[in-house]
Amino acid sequence: MRMLLLNPNTTTAMTDRLLAAALPVASPGTKLVPLTATRGVAYISNRAEAQIAGAVAIEMLAEHHHEIDAAIIAAFGDPGLFGARELFDIPVIGMAEAAMHTACLLGRRFAIVTFAPALAIRSLDGSFRSASDVAEEKEALLLELAQRAIHDDRADVLVLAGAPLAGLAAKVRDRLSVPVVDQVQAAVKQAEAVLALRPRKATSGSFRRPAPKPTSGLGEALARRIEHRDD
Amino acid sequence: MRMLLLNPNTTTAMTDRLLAAALPVASPGTKLVPLTATRGVAYISNRAEAQIAGAVAIEMLAEHHHEIDAAIIAAFGDPGLFGARELFDIPVIGMAEAAMHTACLLGRRFAIVTFAPALAIRSLDGSFRSASDVAEEKEALLLELAQRAIHDDRADVLVLAGAPLAGLAAKVRDRLSVPVVDQVQAAVKQAEAVLALRPRKATSGSFRRPAPKPTSGLGEALARRIEHRDD
Amino acid sequence: MRMLLLNPNTTTAMTDRLLAAALPVASPGTKLVPLTATRGVAYISNRAEAQIAGAVAIEMLAEHHHEIDAAIIAAFGDPGLFGARELFDIPVIGMAEAAMHTACLLGRRFAIVTFAPALAIRSLDGSFRSASDVAEEKEALLLELAQRAIHDDRADVLVLAGAPLAGLAAKVRDRLSVPVVDQVQAAVKQAEAVLALRPRKATSGSFRRPAPKPTSGLGEALARRIEHRDD
Amino acid sequence: MRMLLLNPNTTTAMTDRLLAAALPVASPGTKLVPLTATRGVAYISNRAEAQIAGAVAIEMLAEHHHEIDAAIIAAFGDPGLFGARELFDIPVIGMAEAAMHTACLLGRRFAIVTFAPALAIRSLDGSFRSASDVAEEKEALLLELAQRAIHDDRADVLVLAGAPLAGLAAKVRDRLSVPVVDQVQAAVKQAEAVLALRPRKATSGSFRRPAPKPTSGLGEALARRIEHRDD
Amino acid sequence: MRMLLLNPNTTTAMTDRLLAAALPVASPGTKLVPLTATRGVAYISNRAEAQIAGAVAIEMLAEHHHEIDAAIIAAFGDPGLFGARELFDIPVIGMAEAAMHTACLLGRRFAIVTFAPALAIRSLDGSFRSASDVAEEKEALLLELAQRAIHDDRADVLVLAGAPLAGLAAKVRDRLSVPVVDQVQAAVKQAEAVLALRPRKATSGSFRRPAPKPTSGLGEALARRIEHRDD
Amino acid sequence: MRMLLLNPNTTTAMTDRLLAAALPVASPGTKLVPLTATRGVAYISNRAEAQIAGAVAIEMLAEHHHEIDAAIIAAFGDPGLFGARELFDIPVIGMAEAAMHTACLLGRRFAIVTFAPALAIRSLDGSFRSASDVAEEKEALLLELAQRAIHDDRADVLVLAGAPLAGLAAKVRDRLSVPVVDQVQAAVKQAEAVLALRPRKATSGSFRRPAPKPTSGLGEALARRIEHRDD
Repeated sequence: MRMLLLNPNTTTAMTDRLLAAALPVASPGTKLVPLTATRGVAYISNRAEAQIAGAVAIEMLAEHHHEIDAAIIAAFGDPGLFGARELFDIPVIGMAEAAMHTACLLGRRFAIVTFAPALAIRSLDGSFRSASDVAEEKEALLLELAQRAIHDDRADVLVLAGAPLAGLAAKVRDRLSVPVVDQVQAAVKQAEAVLALRPRKATSGSFRRPAPKPTSGLGEALARRIEHRDD
Repeated sequence: MRMLLLNPNTTTAMTDRLLAAALPVASPGTKLVPLTATRGVAYISNRAEAQIAGAVAIEMLAEHHHEIDAAIIAAFGDPGLFGARELFDIPVIGMAEAAMHTACLLGRRFAIVTFAPALAIRSLDGSFRSASDVAEEKEALLLELAQRAIHDDRADVLVLAGAPLAGLAAKVRDRLSVPVVDQVQAAVKQAEAVLALRPRKATSGSFRRPAPKPTSGLGEALARRIEHRDD
Repeated sequence: MRMLLLNPNTTTAMTDRLLAAALPVASPGTKLVPLTATRGVAYISNRAEAQIAGAVAIEMLAEHHHEIDAAIIAAFGDPGLFGARELFDIPVIGMAEAAMHTACLLGRRFAIVTFAPALAIRSLDGSFRSASDVAEEKEALLLELAQRAIHDDRADVLVLAGAPLAGLAAKVRDRLSVPVVDQVQAAVKQAEAVLALRPRKATSGSFRRPAPKPTSGLGEALARRIEHRDD
Repeated sequence: MRMLLLNPNTTTAMTDRLLAAALPVASPGTKLVPLTATRGVAYISNRAEAQIAGAVAIEMLAEHHHEIDAAIIAAFGDPGLFGARELFDIPVIGMAEAAMHTACLLGRRFAIVTFAPALAIRSLDGSFRSASDVAEEKEALLLELAQRAIHDDRADVLVLAGAPLAGLAAKVRDRLSVPVVDQVQAAVKQAEAVLALRPRKATSGSFRRPAPKPTSGLGEALARRIEHRDD
Repeated sequence: MRMLLLNPNTTTAMTDRLLAAALPVASPGTKLVPLTATRGVAYISNRAEAQIAGAVAIEMLAEHHHEIDAAIIAAFGDPGLFGARELFDIPVIGMAEAAMHTACLLGRRFAIVTFAPALAIRSLDGSFRSASDVAEEKEALLLELAQRAIHDDRADVLVLAGAPLAGLAAKVRDRLSVPVVDQVQAAVKQAEAVLALRPRKATSGSFRRPAPKPTSGLGEALARRIEHRDD
Repeated sequence: MRMLLLNPNTTTAMTDRLLAAALPVASPGTKLVPLTATRGVAYISNRAEAQIAGAVAIEMLAEHHHEIDAAIIAAFGDPGLFGARELFDIPVIGMAEAAMHTACLLGRRFAIVTFAPALAIRSLDGSFRSASDVAEEKEALLLELAQRAIHDDRADVLVLAGAPLAGLAAKVRDRLSVPVVDQVQAAVKQAEAVLALRPRKATSGSFRRPAPKPTSGLGEALARRIEHRDD
């Protein structure tokens, strides 16, 4: 079973970090296939970038969906998720939705803790040197933020959000008093859960594949998919 | 990894059906341990019975939680779930919550289809011969109900609910036009997902273990757990 | 008119306190019948205990419902309330729902103030010597908490919650600047209100009595009620 | 204890009907004092009329609040309720809020059935001869509507709404399969419930009496109340 | 196009202030017609006064609606708005709804900042000398409050609420870091927007003109309108 | 004042239709500047296409925002709206949000009627010959749908949604019994309303311009904007 780990950011170091965090929880039959965006921004942190990155994610899936069994969109805002779920036949899982649904199974209130103010409820304020190293650079501050989420917001569960924090949960779990969800680990397990049910592609409802439609100026793979020239 | 499949109904045939549906999706490392309630009703279908069965489920967990790594409460209303999650150190997953969270990853609107009016949105009306055979007895009617949920309620995903319908999803999936979630399969995969994250037992927040407290008249294992005599 | 004051905690002193608070508001025709659980925990303060106590409350009602005209479940979480309302023909009123509906008639925002963190919005943190004397022991702290609810949470009305605080409202009402609802007094008056309407037992809808069903291992009175052997 | 039954409609026959329905449930200590608006419309059935009638109700309360212990605003939309609760020191109860809170204690879903389309969820469509006799004129149609609310809307409880239907619940209760709430009976019992708690007038929060303020052109009693010349 | 600027407060200085703030944004074809209530309170700041003022606003519209093309109810709580929209054939716009809908087009979270505690989320506490000069008297404090709304409540947009603050937005816009909505300017532009669509008066739905009905004791123009004697 | 009418579909005939509908309501000072996407799909009707079109809209705005005072994103799903509002300094208004906020000022419940099932509450089912002529081709069916929305859904106001229906409101308004909102007319008037307030670009809050960030593979104008090379 081939599972695409699609990083819609253009930073390869972030893809490496996501893969390293994901590998320990993948089942024996799961082959993770990392892929980094070649177009877009270094790390997505606002609405405009999520809009652009979501379109890029759909383009990337148009190129690769025939080679894989499922895909993870590995950025916390799940850019392009619902469009991808509609357009392609394979299951597509977002890292944020996976983390939040998993958190719900571990308590009732969960808090999202992150490093970038635009993404979250509890976030750090200051600037940082490098998005791919922010987990190490800010570990102590993030832990402090997590403690405040537990005590002030009465969180039963924590989600550490944003691709740059992938893998941090395992490091800090013993220093926090509630369960911590690693977003990319949650996504891998949720994608496996969905695949185990062998769900069929909807042919009715709002997630059926759209009818063919003329396009112009789009990438060839995406145009073929939208125009139904890839059947 | 031992996963308790706790049926809070007293019908063994239903436990067998749940186990049969669950086995095909369990990972190699997952050992399913079936257990049937010895006290309660033949099948839970209303609030009073869920209240009673939830207390029975907690008693059963008090007797077995030391022998297992996770537990599934295998009745669709998830009787006793939050109490169990609070009182015990292992992850406890409900069949309804697992099915619904999984359904959310396959679309946006899901419909719950079942055979018992008190449980659900779309349900059959008439009586039936035997709860454990209702899936076969009413298969055609249930499919018709599912079609109505898809078209009239615009469901993107279906959940077939109630322990007696365990395993039905696999049989009917090719006759329905949207993905179908099997509740006990979803529960097994969600329990595996949660275990993969190696979550710690909360020591703060609303799911930490309650402080010790005197009891009277409760079963020995449950009394020991509540009074902290089992540490 | 006989009104059961059912304390699902096992502490008789708490039943005495509830009765003492309730008596001054009972109408001339209302005879309050106190009853203390003989099985369970000394005072309910979390989800697991509420699950167990709710089943105990239903057992107790199965034994006594033929002798009474209405029942109050006199613990703030209303354990077993909806199941009881479904299973029995008499009105059953929960102390929490009664207090909250009454509070709504006295303002728009109400705050719940209590002594146990797991129950409420504003609660004391520290431990206490005895649940049945906590109202006296912590009176000053509770008043301070109430003031914070009024000023910081902009409460128009206060509910003092938890059986151990029954009767406290009357003592402190002149020291607070908004109306205060005593939970057990509210429950007695709401039960009288409902009885005055002479409501029929539903024979359709989700609160009709469930159809007969086989049971095993349940108390005799409860088994008779569920199996319809008590008609 | 004197309880004002304030009919903000100008139809005396409706006040008589309300009083007749209310009397059987009033406690021995409750003296009902009927009062009919002398200014306004024959029966309130839309937003403009409710706005006007609410101001009239406040004027009427300004004239009578010193002579009574509590007041019921006896029109289903509760015109002027929150303003009255703020401006006067006595409890003021609306017929709609009382009916709905009471209905919540008898089930979970309630339906509102009435004769005037602008008021409600399920209402008759045609015209009628006289608002004060509509209950008799349309009894059969209203019963049919109630049945549809029970079966199609899955109502656990019914509220028969609108002053002209006061007293109808008692007549039809045996022909319906769920409990029926009479709005004015509910209001009397809820006013008694609130009075039993001896609630103090808020001196903080959003229902404290407003500070004095100059007025012009208002009725003398109302002007005195707003300007604090009545202390 | 004649647009009534109806001030339901009795303070002429406030009407002048509203008109002065509104004039700069009115389109060339818009003629603003100011009108001050001759009956009521100096400035509306609670529910009782809003109830009374809403009825006064409807009376005033009954006298003037034939001479105008649209009306603005120029008090922040929009007293009488829905009743007026129902009873008259011209568009009627409330200052609060206009400000809030406009704010939604400038961001996602808006904060309401005002000088009177009963009206708003963020408000000043102390007393003030004169409602019509409060904007100048309290400008510094209001700015400080606005800053707190931006930083603590994470507001994307500010609404300065209450007729006495009309015109303040223009003065302080350069000292605040998010867009500021002037309520009366928003109302003028929204009334123009609605008029541009040339909307027909509803003849069905809940805003159609109510059927004729007898009245007593109401002002002549209002009685004529309700009784349909003005056609 | 130059207002961009940005059609994110690639169909020029649709832009012409939008412009024709918009012109009659534009104020004298408003100069409408039509612009058609050169990349994307002929008409957007699902999530995947909206994701792509939103990114295209942002690219187009990056190229033109310096030449205009405000922009309308003229497709009913408002693709790219929030990203655009964040990234650029001019007001950006979506056709759907404008239509819905305007509808709120004309009643309380509005219904959205359209020709494409994926977009809306009430939509036609069958296929159609040409998106740009669907308004004429299906006029009778759309009117029938609108009538059902009024009567069955109790709509006070109708929004005719989807760029191909621009201008239809004016044609059918006299055949419908409630006000009808034309989406592009609403957008023009709302953009004028916002501009009249002369709102400043947020420099704090979630709509401030994002900090500069490296990009790769994006169009030159968009890259310059994101990297802050355009200041």
